[in-house]
Amino acid sequence: MSEQQHPSQLPSTDAIQPDNALQATTENWFEYSVRAHPHHTDYAGIVWHGCYLTWMEEARVEYLRSIGVDFSDLVALGCDLPVIELSVRYHRALRMGESAVVKTRMADIQGVRINWDYQIQSPKGESLYLTARVTLVAIDREKGKILRQLPSAVKDALVMSLRSN
Amino acid sequence: MSEQQHPSQLPSTDAIQPDNALQATTENWFEYSVRAHPHHTDYAGIVWHGCYLTWMEEARVEYLRSIGVDFSDLVALGCDLPVIELSVRYHRALRMGESAVVKTRMADIQGVRINWDYQIQSPKGESLYLTARVTLVAIDREKGKILRQLPSAVKDALVMSLRSN
Amino acid sequence: MSEQQHPSQLPSTDAIQPDNALQATTENWFEYSVRAHPHHTDYAGIVWHGCYLTWMEEARVEYLRSIGVDFSDLVALGCDLPVIELSVRYHRALRMGESAVVKTRMADIQGVRINWDYQIQSPKGESLYLTARVTLVAIDREKGKILRQLPSAVKDALVMSLRSN
Amino acid sequence: MSEQQHPSQLPSTDAIQPDNALQATTENWFEYSVRAHPHHTDYAGIVWHGCYLTWMEEARVEYLRSIGVDFSDLVALGCDLPVIELSVRYHRALRMGESAVVKTRMADIQGVRINWDYQIQSPKGESLYLTARVTLVAIDREKGKILRQLPSAVKDALVMSLRSN
Repeated sequence: MSEQQHPSQLPSTDAIQPDNALQATTENWFEYSVRAHPHHTDYAGIVWHGCYLTWMEEARVEYLRSIGVDFSDLVALGCDLPVIELSVRYHRALRMGESAVVKTRMADIQGVRINWDYQIQSPKGESLYLTARVTLVAIDREKGKILRQLPSAVKDALVMSLRSN
Repeated sequence: MSEQQHPSQLPSTDAIQPDNALQATTENWFEYSVRAHPHHTDYAGIVWHGCYLTWMEEARVEYLRSIGVDFSDLVALGCDLPVIELSVRYHRALRMGESAVVKTRMADIQGVRINWDYQIQSPKGESLYLTARVTLVAIDREKGKILRQLPSAVKDALVMSLRSN
Repeated sequence: MSEQQHPSQLPSTDAIQPDNALQATTENWFEYSVRAHPHHTDYAGIVWHGCYLTWMEEARVEYLRSIGVDFSDLVALGCDLPVIELSVRYHRALRMGESAVVKTRMADIQGVRINWDYQIQSPKGESLYLTARVTLVAIDREKGKILRQLPSAVKDALVMSLRSN
Repeated sequence: MSEQQHPSQLPSTDAIQPDNALQATTENWFEYSVRAHPHHTDYAGIVWHGCYLTWMEEARVEYLRSIGVDFSDLVALGCDLPVIELSVRYHRALRMGESAVVKTRMADIQGVRINWDYQIQSPKGESLYLTARVTLVAIDREKGKILRQLPSAVKDALVMSLRSN
């Protein structure tokens, strides 16, 4: 993988066939519960801004597991899904001891780009802590090259997941 | 700070007076050297995508120190500079053992939003690993409210820094 | 807290009265489930050795919560429980995707030292990943001094917890 | 590496020949400078206790580099040096903004166990923050087995390093 690239400005070609099924059209969020522990906090007593990325990754991996895709199996089979782009808005800080729900869903696939949306909220939804978008690509680990097609098991699981909305 | 908010969609009003001096018009980057150590890496042998945020913060704090602003003093005086927004593009992965340069500069101030640009490159500049923008606001730690004016010592240092470009 | 000290060689005096109740004599472990996610791993595909400390802290905080002690309340009231000593043995590495159980219990109180034992095992107990001991002291956050007596609410909860074994 | 073990109670046999040269008999510390940045801190404004392990690892890797051993090359060649045991005493907390020196040296080799000592001090040595011992073993990454002999390039570099004391 010595030439591994994480291109972030890939042409949104029809490489992975546009598939209407691969668009989240409803409010179908996967929810993952977290709590702000001491090691997440910084000097201000709130969650350090980078720590939210660990929760976002955990929620994504658990969402994949919930639709039958084991991320570590995927990696063992030679496919990786690195983050190539992310944008985060911090609306309100989560404080030590507070719990929250990380909501995520696959938003759509544009060419080789797989977009995920995030909202981190208080358990009852009255506070919004963070909104974010994360873009992944599938790569062949050995060649370090972008896969023009998602592994079919992954794509099928995602399609079924979205259709069940 | 029980009501601390990190609003991310603040009006870009004239709250902090637009000041032409507060715009980086030249290629005046602060450079901060880092190396990818084992604890930064993930299963792929490359730096985990969230770890870059630790380096970006370190570079920002060291840049402030280089212009005479000690961040921990600022916090002790009751002012904080939380991140309210960030966007990152991962162009190429840094591998274990490799060193890199985190380049940062304050891009501009828009209303209460203080924007910073980032580029992470190989030491000689032939590889670009990451580009990013981070937005901070100044807040009064006790009240948890956004400061309409940066503390004058900070603002003066930033203005002088930019004018010296 | 400018003079905060974390003395590690405190005399094991009778400062906090030796209390037979404050000794875990049975196999009364609190169990906390975790899973190895990508951000926990290093280049070897296993959990980076320092990451186990985040899980150990989480398990300790959740154990306290389970007996009625909210750690963030304790901190708000001016008491902290910093780690002053730890020792860890890594028996077997947890790999990405694997889940485990962090078992913890308060072992005993020796003078001002509060000792906790840890075992991290596979869910069914057939693999042992880690054993550890962590020592805390209670400090007065404002004065930065060691508390010769645990706050009574905390001590009572711990005593009741141990007696219920 | 599916059977990778990190045995912590290995017999201190003569597996790796006891070599008087492999004992640090003098005050020959390698020094590595660090600073407490916001992301290192917790709610108490001090470095979170687990963060010191990142610095200890960095110091160890940089020490190896200083004697001609590139850790990422070693891993690429199929050898790893996992931590199998560590013990840490936290004497005094490092606060946000403070800098410190991580002092490390290879203490000795006992059988297959490679022991490292640590002291983290203030830059001028007037404050001692932490003392620690970390034990590594060399393993064959592919087989997941402990190497009875350190790779000769590594052993020679360590021997030369110690002899130059």
